[in-house]
Amino acid sequence: MKEYALVVQGTAFTSRTPKEIEVLKDHLFCINGKGVIERIVAPEASDYVTVADAHRETSRFKRLNEGQYLLPGFVDLHVHAPQWAQSGTALDIPLYDWLNTYTFPLEAKFSDLAFARNVYEDVVDTLLANGTTTALYFATVHKEASVLLAEICASKGQRGLVGKVVMDDPEQNPEYYRDADTNTALKDTEEFIVRVKKLAESTKQGVYPVVTPRFIPSCTDEALKGLGELAARHDTHIQSHCSESDWAHGYVRDRFGKHDAFALNDFGLLTEKSVMAHCNFLDEDDASLFAKTGTAVSHCPISNAYFANSVIPIARWLDKGVEIGLGSDISGGFSPSLYDNARQAVISSRMLEDGVNGELPAAERGVPNSRLTINEAFYLATAGGGESLSLPIGRLAEGYAWDAQIIDTSLAAARLPLYDANEPLEDIFQKIMYLVRPEHIREVWVQGELVHKRG
Amino acid sequence: MKEYALVVQGTAFTSRTPKEIEVLKDHLFCINGKGVIERIVAPEASDYVTVADAHRETSRFKRLNEGQYLLPGFVDLHVHAPQWAQSGTALDIPLYDWLNTYTFPLEAKFSDLAFARNVYEDVVDTLLANGTTTALYFATVHKEASVLLAEICASKGQRGLVGKVVMDDPEQNPEYYRDADTNTALKDTEEFIVRVKKLAESTKQGVYPVVTPRFIPSCTDEALKGLGELAARHDTHIQSHCSESDWAHGYVRDRFGKHDAFALNDFGLLTEKSVMAHCNFLDEDDASLFAKTGTAVSHCPISNAYFANSVIPIARWLDKGVEIGLGSDISGGFSPSLYDNARQAVISSRMLEDGVNGELPAAERGVPNSRLTINEAFYLATAGGGESLSLPIGRLAEGYAWDAQIIDTSLAAARLPLYDANEPLEDIFQKIMYLVRPEHIREVWVQGELVHKRG
Ligand SMILES: [Zn+2]
Ligand SMILES: [Zn+2]
Repeated sequence: MKEYALVVQGTAFTSRTPKEIEVLKDHLFCINGKGVIERIVAPEASDYVTVADAHRETSRFKRLNEGQYLLPGFVDLHVHAPQWAQSGTALDIPLYDWLNTYTFPLEAKFSDLAFARNVYEDVVDTLLANGTTTALYFATVHKEASVLLAEICASKGQRGLVGKVVMDDPEQNPEYYRDADTNTALKDTEEFIVRVKKLAESTKQGVYPVVTPRFIPSCTDEALKGLGELAARHDTHIQSHCSESDWAHGYVRDRFGKHDAFALNDFGLLTEKSVMAHCNFLDEDDASLFAKTGTAVSHCPISNAYFANSVIPIARWLDKGVEIGLGSDISGGFSPSLYDNARQAVISSRMLEDGVNGELPAAERGVPNSRLTINEAFYLATAGGGESLSLPIGRLAEGYAWDAQIIDTSLAAARLPLYDANEPLEDIFQKIMYLVRPEHIREVWVQGELVHKRG
Repeated sequence: MKEYALVVQGTAFTSRTPKEIEVLKDHLFCINGKGVIERIVAPEASDYVTVADAHRETSRFKRLNEGQYLLPGFVDLHVHAPQWAQSGTALDIPLYDWLNTYTFPLEAKFSDLAFARNVYEDVVDTLLANGTTTALYFATVHKEASVLLAEICASKGQRGLVGKVVMDDPEQNPEYYRDADTNTALKDTEEFIVRVKKLAESTKQGVYPVVTPRFIPSCTDEALKGLGELAARHDTHIQSHCSESDWAHGYVRDRFGKHDAFALNDFGLLTEKSVMAHCNFLDEDDASLFAKTGTAVSHCPISNAYFANSVIPIARWLDKGVEIGLGSDISGGFSPSLYDNARQAVISSRMLEDGVNGELPAAERGVPNSRLTINEAFYLATAGGGESLSLPIGRLAEGYAWDAQIIDTSLAAARLPLYDANEPLEDIFQKIMYLVRPEHIREVWVQGELVHKRG
């Protein structure tokens, strides 16, 4: 009888396809010493009872309570970790003021490692408490504080992908907050990559350095070129912002005579391990280039309502085979929860489909066939995020990491509306996706380790 | 020295105008035996210390802890109480299926009083836990269950305005779920009004019967006429749905050759005490009629994304002087939280302003000057709701009911991102509005009584 590091018995929801949920009722999830799901045993399997019995009386067995359900941990593809300190503020002011009065002065403070530790510990704790087991982070320009963020992820058990931000163009960035010069930006990035790779060697769940030009407008050509080379040489992930708003999209067209996608690709920045935030103004050719290069879109539906001037047609790009996941975009998006972002992904897609201006005739108001279902939003928050990062995460399936959240629907203080003992599990899944708040997330596991617990 | 029933010392946020927040730092809120704020004492007042000292050592004094803040209780102008049982489900299916496969069969079950009690107790508890101190409810067609909902509000201390729903047209409503006939609908409504008015005599915070034609399509002309007369005779509030979607708006135009607003007004259903849900397709004349009659709009931003085919231009109607508040529209809207709805009100307004279809040039995409600030969304959730109902609620001001929520920003399990001891209170207010979840709402008070408490 094979002995596993952990066997969990319970009912789970996971994506079968972008449109379909798979319900695994009362299955056994058998996790090995590396924190990987080695086997999933259905109740019909001939050795279901044997496997359960072999672990039941040990500390390596866990049976979910009545009313509890398993979901994969969420994958947040876009978080500005330092901006957690200003989350929820200043969303009523123009982007220019938002950057120059709030965001850049705040990020500049992360030269102070004590302040950085304070905020970074909170943001990692907060994301874990919201069910986010993997996060793709922008840190700041500061090398030391960026390494610190990676260390905090490593020690708190979150799978962190962290980028030291590059913004080297003295014309485009404030004097008090930018890389000293292009050379320093590239040297710091390379040192950052090496140190995080070293840290990864002793980090069970993984921690990854990410090449991170803030966005084209903040970088010189030399920096963009150098970063593409660094990513290739060290085989790292890459992240940036791409065609986010009318302004940013127009700026890149003016500078390079092409869209962000092609400009980034020219610098070697679109690869299988690239994730680009927002991407609202991709056209058909840009999306084809994304699909061809394996570049993923980080869809940030809450933030987009404030800063992106449009709704990105996610259903269209999913159909085209572009890899897509969800991003909270703290603090352009106020919420640290991918539940909130999944809900907004559905809402925004409905508003794209139906249109917004009631003075127009219905037929001229929106863009047909744009709606996403809550199943699709869940896919984006889980399996889609995993595929975007090219990591075996985001599914409760054999060969995937045991990254999971345990949801309690019967919490006394905040019971979900479940009245029918025979309620279909598909409906319970929908209630979870629409109504769960952090207090319902009782446990969060990453790579087989318990990293967050309530009560 | 005057003795109050309750004196609360703390920092509060309340609307001064729809656009402006008033910050009352370390004020004393002096509440009389009727649960009304009799006096608010600023720290500069000559008798501040005297008033505080006179109550400090009694059980009638309450000082907020560090990190705690006061907000007015929220006013939810549109809740289908029975639909709490299906909240979060079936939002991906067409309206027709949503009504006939889910909603009507569910509402029909409220002939069973035991089932009704179960769901109604939960929905009232849930709304209180979300900071909603006043709610305007649709119950079902069933008279007894509707009275039961009013009784539950009364006993749990929520200010409930409850309507027995009228849907009498045999052509438009399923045989298993409608009023027996027009006469019965009117007789049941009148008996309901009388019984709830009787109940109100012994209910400190108030409980109110509401004349409630479901919407024009579900009612005969005779029923609409009779309901207008009942509302006038008994001086009750009135609620219905108005110009919600392309379909509903078109139906009424076909039947009466006019918009919902004018049709409802013809039946005596637009009064100072009327609240109409959604109203997405009001035109300028409809809005003028609302302003003239004192009819309020219940803005349901989450639900509208699913069922209303557009975004209502709230900024435009606020400028015009229409009374407007917020509605959760459970379960067309999935969330029982007006925080969620306030956030979506801002988001939807930004999407109306900027537009959604990125393939259009920016200038043709949206409707300029449509955006709402978070201050305005807060106004809608509080003072705007109070004005819509013509009740002295929704403000922390003298002469208003002591309906309040105590928010804890420093909760260990879910601390808000506050790092600067000198952070402006206006920024803390914004973080509260964007980041608070039910667990942060430590106490909820209605009419001077504690009705919900955590920890
Ligand atoms: Zn960003
Ligand atoms: Zn409704």
